[in-house]
Amino acid sequence: MPYVNIKVTREGTSPDRPSVTPEQKAELIKGVSELLLKVLNKPLDWTFVVINEVEKEDWGVGGLPVDEWRRQKAAAK
Amino acid sequence: MPYVNIKVTREGTSPDRPSVTPEQKAELIKGVSELLLKVLNKPLDWTFVVINEVEKEDWGVGGLPVDEWRRQKAAAK
Amino acid sequence: MPYVNIKVTREGTSPDRPSVTPEQKAELIKGVSELLLKVLNKPLDWTFVVINEVEKEDWGVGGLPVDEWRRQKAAAK
Amino acid sequence: MPYVNIKVTREGTSPDRPSVTPEQKAELIKGVSELLLKVLNKPLDWTFVVINEVEKEDWGVGGLPVDEWRRQKAAAK
Amino acid sequence: MPYVNIKVTREGTSPDRPSVTPEQKAELIKGVSELLLKVLNKPLDWTFVVINEVEKEDWGVGGLPVDEWRRQKAAAK
Amino acid sequence: MPYVNIKVTREGTSPDRPSVTPEQKAELIKGVSELLLKVLNKPLDWTFVVINEVEKEDWGVGGLPVDEWRRQKAAAK
Repeated sequence: MPYVNIKVTREGTSPDRPSVTPEQKAELIKGVSELLLKVLNKPLDWTFVVINEVEKEDWGVGGLPVDEWRRQKAAAK
Repeated sequence: MPYVNIKVTREGTSPDRPSVTPEQKAELIKGVSELLLKVLNKPLDWTFVVINEVEKEDWGVGGLPVDEWRRQKAAAK
Repeated sequence: MPYVNIKVTREGTSPDRPSVTPEQKAELIKGVSELLLKVLNKPLDWTFVVINEVEKEDWGVGGLPVDEWRRQKAAAK
Repeated sequence: MPYVNIKVTREGTSPDRPSVTPEQKAELIKGVSELLLKVLNKPLDWTFVVINEVEKEDWGVGGLPVDEWRRQKAAAK
Repeated sequence: MPYVNIKVTREGTSPDRPSVTPEQKAELIKGVSELLLKVLNKPLDWTFVVINEVEKEDWGVGGLPVDEWRRQKAAAK
Repeated sequence: MPYVNIKVTREGTSPDRPSVTPEQKAELIKGVSELLLKVLNKPLDWTFVVINEVEKEDWGVGGLPVDEWRRQKAAAK
């Protein structure tokens, strides 16, 4: 009876993509469900996965919205 | 002091509806708040309910996005 | 494909009970699953319910831990 | 290693604003991250914050969607 | 910036284990973090994973606590 | 109508403390509730805060349980 929630920032893995693609989401669902089958013997049909894409202005790290935090990290190098 | 979170796939209960209606959401809020009052004596004003509609490509079951999983279940019959 | 999470403070409905009983939990599970069947036609087998009992020192309202908040509300009457 | 999730109704703090502004979100992220640093010595870089704005029809209190609950509270005064 | 929450019932994968072992938890953490690296290029250090074991009386499916649901499924065969 | 969930590893801020103290929890509840009042004008009584302490073996970062990740970070310096 697993329930998995995956939260990621809404952004693509290449400049032409504004967000995670349906294919990538399907890979995440498949991968994590198979992981629970392998490690804990959970039948695939018993695993629910919910993916949430979170706008970058809604995600904070280092006390800053994520884009601002990345800018400061890059500038500090 | 209850907090209830209800997650459902974003889809309607009939073909002409793309999503859960405001009336259905109000029914869910009323129903679950009254349930907590009945079972645990929780005053209605102390119960918060948050409903999340989740896009079908973001919901996985059986290792697949939910639409694909339903297609395979239907085909297997 | 609903997923429901119910969070309540860990406390009983009568002085001799330190927490929610298994019977009350079963009632919550039954009630909310049937609500989703009635309002949104969700098959019972597709609804997962997770109940979390939260220690009272971990639940805040009014800027205070819940026991302290209740004391102040009672005193203000 | 803190993770903080802040859920608020999607609405502005003045009539001309339909939602929480990016500046207000940045203030929330900064404020809660600094709180965890001050109270629990958590380094800022270890704190993730996720903000969710929830449509008012998806937020229930008092057994009602929040707008209806506010109307009844206002009418009862 | 991913955050992953994995909820499973508290039970072992063999009769002598009352719960998920620390080694199995480490495998879940490793597996899901590497999945996010592979599919979305998320650096391992940016992925937080939180595992929750949920007592079986707190997990419902089919309108029943999970143990009761399993008993009925087994009896129906 | 805010709801705030704060998850931290279960550990104390000094060697003699195994976990977050009730006083520290009260500070977190007060601090975050006042932050929402200041930034978004949310009345204190409308803000629920739930704190979860997560066992260290249940928290992953960098693909590892948090204790192991800290050991490797310390060793790499």
